[in-house]
Amino acid sequence: MSQEAQILTFIIVVSLISLGYAGWLASWVLKKDMGTPKMQEISNAIKEGAVAFLNRQYKTIISLAIVTAIIIFGIYYGVQNDAALAWKTGVAFIFGSFSSALAGYVGMHIAIRSNVRTAAASTRSLNEALKVSLRGGAVSGITIVAMSLLGISILFLLYGGLSNPTHVPYMLVGYGFGASFVALFAQLGGGIYTKAADVGADLVGKVEAGIPEDDPRNPAVIADLVGDNVGDCAGRGADLFESTAAENIGAMILGIALYQHFGLDGILFPLLARAFGLIAAMFGVLIVKTKEDGEPMQALNKGYYLTSILAAIGFYIATDLLLNGNIWFFYAGLVGIVTSILFVYITQYYTEYRYRPVKEIAESAKTGPATVIITGFAVALENTVLPAIVIGIALIMSYYFGLKGSALEMANNPAAGVIIGGGFFGTAIATMGMLSTSAYVLAMDTFGPITDNAGGIIEMSDQPEAIRKKTDKLDAVGNTTKALTKGYAVGSAALAAFLLFNAYLDDVGELMQKSKHFIGQTTQQIYALSHTINLADVHIFVAGLLGAMLVFIFSSLAIAAVGKAAYSVISDVRAQFKENPGIMKGTSKPDYGRTVDIVTKTALKKMVLPGILPILSPIVIGLIFREFGFGPQAVAGFIMVATIVGVLFAIVLNNGGGAWDNAKKYVETGALGGKGSDAHKAAVVGDTVGDPFKDTAGPSLHVLIKLLATVTLVMAPLFL
Amino acid sequence: MSQEAQILTFIIVVSLISLGYAGWLASWVLKKDMGTPKMQEISNAIKEGAVAFLNRQYKTIISLAIVTAIIIFGIYYGVQNDAALAWKTGVAFIFGSFSSALAGYVGMHIAIRSNVRTAAASTRSLNEALKVSLRGGAVSGITIVAMSLLGISILFLLYGGLSNPTHVPYMLVGYGFGASFVALFAQLGGGIYTKAADVGADLVGKVEAGIPEDDPRNPAVIADLVGDNVGDCAGRGADLFESTAAENIGAMILGIALYQHFGLDGILFPLLARAFGLIAAMFGVLIVKTKEDGEPMQALNKGYYLTSILAAIGFYIATDLLLNGNIWFFYAGLVGIVTSILFVYITQYYTEYRYRPVKEIAESAKTGPATVIITGFAVALENTVLPAIVIGIALIMSYYFGLKGSALEMANNPAAGVIIGGGFFGTAIATMGMLSTSAYVLAMDTFGPITDNAGGIIEMSDQPEAIRKKTDKLDAVGNTTKALTKGYAVGSAALAAFLLFNAYLDDVGELMQKSKHFIGQTTQQIYALSHTINLADVHIFVAGLLGAMLVFIFSSLAIAAVGKAAYSVISDVRAQFKENPGIMKGTSKPDYGRTVDIVTKTALKKMVLPGILPILSPIVIGLIFREFGFGPQAVAGFIMVATIVGVLFAIVLNNGGGAWDNAKKYVETGALGGKGSDAHKAAVVGDTVGDPFKDTAGPSLHVLIKLLATVTLVMAPLFL
Repeated sequence: MSQEAQILTFIIVVSLISLGYAGWLASWVLKKDMGTPKMQEISNAIKEGAVAFLNRQYKTIISLAIVTAIIIFGIYYGVQNDAALAWKTGVAFIFGSFSSALAGYVGMHIAIRSNVRTAAASTRSLNEALKVSLRGGAVSGITIVAMSLLGISILFLLYGGLSNPTHVPYMLVGYGFGASFVALFAQLGGGIYTKAADVGADLVGKVEAGIPEDDPRNPAVIADLVGDNVGDCAGRGADLFESTAAENIGAMILGIALYQHFGLDGILFPLLARAFGLIAAMFGVLIVKTKEDGEPMQALNKGYYLTSILAAIGFYIATDLLLNGNIWFFYAGLVGIVTSILFVYITQYYTEYRYRPVKEIAESAKTGPATVIITGFAVALENTVLPAIVIGIALIMSYYFGLKGSALEMANNPAAGVIIGGGFFGTAIATMGMLSTSAYVLAMDTFGPITDNAGGIIEMSDQPEAIRKKTDKLDAVGNTTKALTKGYAVGSAALAAFLLFNAYLDDVGELMQKSKHFIGQTTQQIYALSHTINLADVHIFVAGLLGAMLVFIFSSLAIAAVGKAAYSVISDVRAQFKENPGIMKGTSKPDYGRTVDIVTKTALKKMVLPGILPILSPIVIGLIFREFGFGPQAVAGFIMVATIVGVLFAIVLNNGGGAWDNAKKYVETGALGGKGSDAHKAAVVGDTVGDPFKDTAGPSLHVLIKLLATVTLVMAPLFL
Repeated sequence: MSQEAQILTFIIVVSLISLGYAGWLASWVLKKDMGTPKMQEISNAIKEGAVAFLNRQYKTIISLAIVTAIIIFGIYYGVQNDAALAWKTGVAFIFGSFSSALAGYVGMHIAIRSNVRTAAASTRSLNEALKVSLRGGAVSGITIVAMSLLGISILFLLYGGLSNPTHVPYMLVGYGFGASFVALFAQLGGGIYTKAADVGADLVGKVEAGIPEDDPRNPAVIADLVGDNVGDCAGRGADLFESTAAENIGAMILGIALYQHFGLDGILFPLLARAFGLIAAMFGVLIVKTKEDGEPMQALNKGYYLTSILAAIGFYIATDLLLNGNIWFFYAGLVGIVTSILFVYITQYYTEYRYRPVKEIAESAKTGPATVIITGFAVALENTVLPAIVIGIALIMSYYFGLKGSALEMANNPAAGVIIGGGFFGTAIATMGMLSTSAYVLAMDTFGPITDNAGGIIEMSDQPEAIRKKTDKLDAVGNTTKALTKGYAVGSAALAAFLLFNAYLDDVGELMQKSKHFIGQTTQQIYALSHTINLADVHIFVAGLLGAMLVFIFSSLAIAAVGKAAYSVISDVRAQFKENPGIMKGTSKPDYGRTVDIVTKTALKKMVLPGILPILSPIVIGLIFREFGFGPQAVAGFIMVATIVGVLFAIVLNNGGGAWDNAKKYVETGALGGKGSDAHKAAVVGDTVGDPFKDTAGPSLHVLIKLLATVTLVMAPLFL
């Protein structure tokens, strides 16, 4: 077995061990006690709703995916006239969609079983509750990352990557597109569901009927708890599944540029780095524990730092094994790891009420809801400054490290020839660095809905105050980790997108070399031609303008969908209160299932249009501008400007929403008059406005950014 | 006298005649009767406040302008080592600033005298009130456009344009920068003032004290009326002054590309087209009249259509005289005129309550303020679709018309050589077409604050119901025209910016040709080099990312400034109510001047940071990226992406704010429970949130877009 085959085997083995580890975590969690019958009853209601939603959602997604797979096959078969490539791309797409869906399913399967066990554990000790919830979340995190790694490794092997490594990565793009495809719908559908249920439950419960949050008399309360799972857990899981998948494939494509120097090793490097990241996360999860009066966030942070350090060490080993120990490439990876930590800090500053921004929003609640919105919106926009600067510095630094690393290789081995695109390989390595902790981050993220649910179960099953305090503590930490994950996801989306559209441009160059129109041009000339996206050209400028517009209309559709779906919840709850007056008196139970059913239907209906838009629009742009002779370049301009605007606008929406949420929580701590005051009422308006921003439109934009890149990678042959 | 000298003389004479015409309109208005002593008293208070604000604002702007002029001189003298150019650019800057300020001053001088005369006229007939207010507005519109034309023509003549036409346009860029400079501060300061007063007066008056709008007991009421003048009138006037100035200069620079074919004629063409536009507007204003029960909007539209038709005819004559009657260039101009009409229609659709978008927002008021904001924001984002498509089609069509026109010239006269950049000249002509009706549009815009003030004067001087109805009718029309002007301004800003950064790239090419680093390269090579802004390059991409970020942070600062200044108004009004309980009883008068004074101070303080930011940021970007060898290109990427995002985000803010405003007005017509209902209260929140969006941040973004282009044009020598 060649060294490369050994490494690929090692990667596959690590993926399988990780899946085994996730299985072990799952059985550890499932063995835990399930609490009182009352708790189980509530948990079962949540479980039922979540499973029903996921089943129906997957049904919709599968039918859309099959149509898309046929179209992809048709395009490759018709345009490229290459039956083998058509089959491979189509199958990769199906396989990618399927893996993403399966990973989401498994993660949620455990999450909706961890909630009640966390609730039960909290009656015993904080440490046990923390462990159950984090390990339940880690099943999701580890499974997702391991599945994505396994899928790509197997496809690479099956498609003959060991013998034809410079072409096979292009055949994998279908896998990335499949993953993004499912991710977009999962995030959109889940995001619409969760916020429609949340907003609807709040408006009709807290505002109209005057009952507290998670009150069992509210018919929308189960829908709200289901929403946490299908939105935060399944949605973000799919988001990061596709991040890691698409980024792996993109980085492999960029690695081709260094083939003369590293051979297959440069192409396998992303996979090995990811495998080490998985190992790091497994250790990180295990060390998390807390004392009864401890601070759970600190415990989680400890695990995060351990994971980061181990991932950095793994990175170093991978560089040593596969990239001739070139220190510059290791530095590029470090840039990514540092970027992820900076993003976590920036997100905290802008969304926690210990700091100025959220305090300012809360202060403005004194003059009513209008000023809360005005101030909050100003803060949300201000949010873009630091992330933009950090991303900018990270891209430029890793680019120059990539150039330096390439120069070093060329100096050491001049015979192997000139490296073109070594700078972009540097940015790809930074992206890998940033994503190397993704399994752990995802575990922290899924910890969020589990503890949120546990809190709801405790509340609804009338547990004593002391236990509620414990789950409240965990719930608050969960809110923070959810916000941090979004910051992490958007930062990595920015880097991943940059990597992906460079992969797209490489792909275009590859296609140009095959095309008869470019015969006689040197590799350098074709590279320059395919990698020049001249924004001063009127076609590219207009395409860019349309790309920016796409971000706005997509956000508009996502936000409007929540409004409409929430309205369906409100109508149903009002009808239930009217039909059955016993509900409010507490003498009869509301029909939770009916509300769950209605919000499921509306959310799935409303996810289709915003979901199809980003898939079709680059294709339409490509076909229109092909008529002017600018197909591939216009598409590139379109997705690049969309990426820039999408990343920043996602930050506006995510952190703005998070800040409003916490401004309300700040008032609820007793500041500015506390709960029930006019300031609180004003802050609640801000919180409600922020809901669809931070949990529907914002996170969906992360996926959109990467989907645009993967759809163009797959559709590239159409545009030439 | 050569034909060219005759044409330049004609242009100057037309500008002077226009100024004479404006003087005649002014004396016509000033001869009108000033109404009751009570009316005059209120009008005098507004006058005083407005003059005091403008004086102080100009003092701040002048000191900033002097510093800037010295810096410009220093840069040109130091970097380019060209004393003559340094003087000329510095003087042009001062002259541009001064002309812009003077035009704004004159316009406001008449506007604040037209309001009381409109009020008095409304006691006699609707027709007379319409005429007084439109003609008062037209003084502003005509003066502004004529001054900009006169200033550029004189400078062109003085700087030796007739003998050295291919270099002198570059010396005029200082004039455009001066105009943008003043415009940005005028729009920001005025915008912050007007909305701080409006929001403050509403929150403390309507919401807290429960007194109606324009109630004389509210100490902020005069500040609110002053605000309409300094924001809408002086602010937008400066905005369009700089649009016409910068666009003239930019179009002249692009005209240089066709010098081999058209000689001086191609460079004078923009000025002649503008002169015909002025003549068209003078006729348009004169024909506006209405019956007592007539619809004033229809009367204004009639004037607008006449102006458009005359402007189109003038365009044809100008093409015939100066561009060999090349029909393709005339078509490019038509594209601009049609674009302006489309923008007017789109703005109407999204901001009037006859149509779906505003109705949807109003409907959502039934479930409270949060859903009003969510739905409104979704609608605001949706707004970007049609404008982006229209701008895209306009740019590409006019570009191809420019290419076709150039091809025709080359075919007719092959000896004169190849035209490079003919397509961009096409887009420049489209921009001229769009701006050819600007004097009339500005008249309609200034009509807005005049009628708004007239309504306030009628309300405060206790006139009978029948008269109030008349001014209400005019006021409603004024709201529509204000919204339309913003749509028009942002559309023309998009086209003008595209033209301007192409002028910037020409400028860079011109500098490269002079530079010793590029000796031996052909004109074509240098053109290709200077006109390639490769977004796939990491430096340009990062610069673009920062450009998008600039738009968000600028909007954030503008919106936050309103919030803070409004808070100062609220505090003062509360203090006055407390210090003097007689105010609410109606036994003693509030101290209007004190509130005016406070909001003046805060607005001026708060305008400085957002004003300086867009001036400094392209310079900083240019200097940083010069270190990487990408100075001019990074700046171009920065301003291009900023333009794309700025245009779309301005539309979001303008139309979103307008839609919220009219959703409230729709409820006030009696829909959904009418005034005083919960839906109305929710709609008021939306209206208040929209205020700083539509009257501060949005319009300031128009100016920002063009300022970025003019500042880079002036600072280009720094970046190489």
